[in-house]
Amino acid sequence: MINHLVIIGVGLIGSSLSLALKDSGNVNKVTGCGRSEKNLKKGVKLGVIDDYALDIAAAVKEADVIVVAVPLGAMREVFSQISTSLKPAAVITDVGSAKETVMQDASEILGDKVSRFVGGHPIAGTENSGVEAGFSSLYQERKVILTPAQDTDEDAVNVVENMWRACGAQVEHMEVHHHDMVLAATSHLPHMLAFSLVSHLSKMTDQDEIFNYAAGGFRDFTRIASSDPVMWRDICLANGDALVKLIQGYKEELDHIASAIQNNDPEALFDLFRDAKHTRDQLRHL
Amino acid sequence: MINHLVIIGVGLIGSSLSLALKDSGNVNKVTGCGRSEKNLKKGVKLGVIDDYALDIAAAVKEADVIVVAVPLGAMREVFSQISTSLKPAAVITDVGSAKETVMQDASEILGDKVSRFVGGHPIAGTENSGVEAGFSSLYQERKVILTPAQDTDEDAVNVVENMWRACGAQVEHMEVHHHDMVLAATSHLPHMLAFSLVSHLSKMTDQDEIFNYAAGGFRDFTRIASSDPVMWRDICLANGDALVKLIQGYKEELDHIASAIQNNDPEALFDLFRDAKHTRDQLRHL
Repeated sequence: MINHLVIIGVGLIGSSLSLALKDSGNVNKVTGCGRSEKNLKKGVKLGVIDDYALDIAAAVKEADVIVVAVPLGAMREVFSQISTSLKPAAVITDVGSAKETVMQDASEILGDKVSRFVGGHPIAGTENSGVEAGFSSLYQERKVILTPAQDTDEDAVNVVENMWRACGAQVEHMEVHHHDMVLAATSHLPHMLAFSLVSHLSKMTDQDEIFNYAAGGFRDFTRIASSDPVMWRDICLANGDALVKLIQGYKEELDHIASAIQNNDPEALFDLFRDAKHTRDQLRHL
Repeated sequence: MINHLVIIGVGLIGSSLSLALKDSGNVNKVTGCGRSEKNLKKGVKLGVIDDYALDIAAAVKEADVIVVAVPLGAMREVFSQISTSLKPAAVITDVGSAKETVMQDASEILGDKVSRFVGGHPIAGTENSGVEAGFSSLYQERKVILTPAQDTDEDAVNVVENMWRACGAQVEHMEVHHHDMVLAATSHLPHMLAFSLVSHLSKMTDQDEIFNYAAGGFRDFTRIASSDPVMWRDICLANGDALVKLIQGYKEELDHIASAIQNNDPEALFDLFRDAKHTRDQLRHL
């Protein structure tokens, strides 16, 4: 049970966390912080948060747990605002989709309070954004990856683990750099591919007609291109090295298909599709 | 009402067509043809077809409508087998995902009976294959594109239109070359992107772990990589020119993202993601 939770950034991820903790009776009071008072008022009205504050430094003074759920590029500034107001026992965590820059920001800004910081990443989401997009079951049976450092306090890790488990999530630990590589492959690259596809087709002269005939495959494939552009801009910049390397390798796969078509090579095409189908069929439980 | 329908190739598309026509009372008898007797027997047992035949030439002798639902690379051979056995009033149609090669095959093989051939393409499907994958609602509110030629008999076009409307589909006409361009963009390219992603990730050294952490975006994105490899091999070869051109343009989009990351250019990334989100949000009804 968390007595006083402060969520900084009340979007899809922060709202869903609050609703999940409230629904399961694992939090006493939730205060929302953010830049948009309109969004925060909506959060109170929807029952997502109990109250809100625009002054982050003041808001965290009495907080037991602070969840920073802002885009990666805003983490550093938030850490600066809270670093001198925290209670000694307060636990800080985040929900960023890349962890190396966040861990670095925390280390540089939080000073000796960095031992109370536990990097976290719930592998869950939808293509929707904002407080009204939140729902309490978002984390049910989803993985949450924590990236504690060697000097992170064990009790702080326990608090964050228990928080996510109360939301129905499976909590795992991972080394920071490894996390960013795995997520670049399974989440960041697919999002780039979807954004690129929509972008490419929208430049075609008969784009209206093209989208009119889009079928199920296209629909599933591009849904994630409706995701928040600020969040994805920041993820690209935070995890750029891994992502660029994956994009290069991916382009070679496309070249392989294009060459097989141009060389009129049915075997090469069949082999590639058969192997990919075989791999994907094994993931049907996903 | 079709009196005797012969479906050559009783897979997802053929089975679903038969079930939709049977359920709506728009067909009297359905005979299935194909190379796998095991699959055809299963079709009879499941009630998808009334009977089956392995000798295609004999099977179509009394047929009023023949639907050729085989991979694109097998169309020509099927046309050869049926061309001399058809009743004069019989109507032939197909369900191929690319239309230019099919129209050419029909024109070269069917001789003066080509006026009874109506090229068709139901824009519907799932990633599953085989007779057991069929279901009667597959075509409900889906588009079916017909590509009749100038010399196609009007009554033959009407028969095929009515058949698909009886399945709940919306029927439209399109010029052959234009069809292949539109479908390359909205269906063939996305499938190549999904196959390529699964292929690329499966080559990474820690692929097991990578797939273990795959989230919703990855799941939606790669579902179509479970599609039939023979079908997709043939689509690539039949619609290669349009597809290769799209792959080249798509690679330029990826280069654009990679360059923006490498140049540490947040504006370029934000603009691309914002525009793509704006476009995709307008397609939410899909």
